[in-house]
Amino acid sequence: MSETLTIFTYDWVPKGPRGFVRDLRLRWAAEEAGLAYEIGAVPFEDRQPSHFAHQPFGQVPFLTEGDISIFESGACLLHLAKKSEILMPRTPRGEAETTEWVIAALNSIEMVSVPWWFLGLSGDHENGLSGWLDSRLAHVETVLGGREWLVEGRFTVADLLMADVLRIPQVRARGDRPASEAYIRRALARPAFEKARADQMAHFAAADAKRGEG
Amino acid sequence: MSETLTIFTYDWVPKGPRGFVRDLRLRWAAEEAGLAYEIGAVPFEDRQPSHFAHQPFGQVPFLTEGDISIFESGACLLHLAKKSEILMPRTPRGEAETTEWVIAALNSIEMVSVPWWFLGLSGDHENGLSGWLDSRLAHVETVLGGREWLVEGRFTVADLLMADVLRIPQVRARGDRPASEAYIRRALARPAFEKARADQMAHFAAADAKRGEG
Repeated sequence: MSETLTIFTYDWVPKGPRGFVRDLRLRWAAEEAGLAYEIGAVPFEDRQPSHFAHQPFGQVPFLTEGDISIFESGACLLHLAKKSEILMPRTPRGEAETTEWVIAALNSIEMVSVPWWFLGLSGDHENGLSGWLDSRLAHVETVLGGREWLVEGRFTVADLLMADVLRIPQVRARGDRPASEAYIRRALARPAFEKARADQMAHFAAADAKRGEG
Repeated sequence: MSETLTIFTYDWVPKGPRGFVRDLRLRWAAEEAGLAYEIGAVPFEDRQPSHFAHQPFGQVPFLTEGDISIFESGACLLHLAKKSEILMPRTPRGEAETTEWVIAALNSIEMVSVPWWFLGLSGDHENGLSGWLDSRLAHVETVLGGREWLVEGRFTVADLLMADVLRIPQVRARGDRPASEAYIRRALARPAFEKARADQMAHFAAADAKRGEG
């Protein structure tokens, strides 16, 4: 099999989630590290067994590389981080701290922020998870008040993921958290993020054109 | 500094969460792999700055080993998995698949099940997250209907975590999912789980005795 690194996303999505679909996390990491990659696509509207074979929940992203197929953006990021010290320090302590913050972004923040956002889709941003979310965001604000980046004073894949989790507009609008806001801006100003975001937007715009929409 | 592996939990917790506090995940992994470890404790009722220095959200577990300190049970499990092939295969593909299922347990299941459980504390197990939870559990049931363990046909740290996520009584009681139920029973029948659970129960019982409760 080819050893090409391929990042899979949907063939099309509605306008709302564009710029936030999680293949962006993998594109961003590959751009930071200068890794060559291709983009693959699976149908958004008619999810096939071949998609579920790679991603048992029918979501994206997943990546393939030779005989390896990985789903979960966090696992894909840890896989990419093994390829480049740009994404993760090579010391045992640096690896441990990068891994803990990758998982904290997913399991301490996103575990509350995504269900909170989901409940808020009906318009109610003051719901049963609001207090818990505010508490978690306050702890992150304390951490970010004391450091520029999460691990060893420099950007790692942990910052990529934490910034992507925190940049959701509804989360970002929640309370006054200046250190978090400055951190998000620092991360989003990176050329690799801008490239990844522009490429994702172009991918879905091309799909509109093909469908005769736009 | 000492290279002793120390797993930190609370000095005491109320009866309800006993047997489910997440230091159990780390004890279980260490028991499976035959790793020597000690147990440390931080106050449950009066959380100190020294605790937040190790775990910025004021939770447990965290582990220390020499100059390394790691929080997030998932990150701790991946750290322990590097020490023993019993916990994770050593092939690139086996490592990738173990990592993806560790993160799937946290970010595809627990991200829905824990907020669902939290909303249900007020007694309403039919809440805004119920349908989403049922969908996620159905996908896991499909996967477990086709295999005994998640990765390479044998128990790994991914099963340890997935089983611990699925064994929450309210989740386990949710619908008829025979493959998931058989999987949970297989995992919980392992001597290392029984030892870890008994040790956690004894730890908190000793704390009761010290407080003059019990």
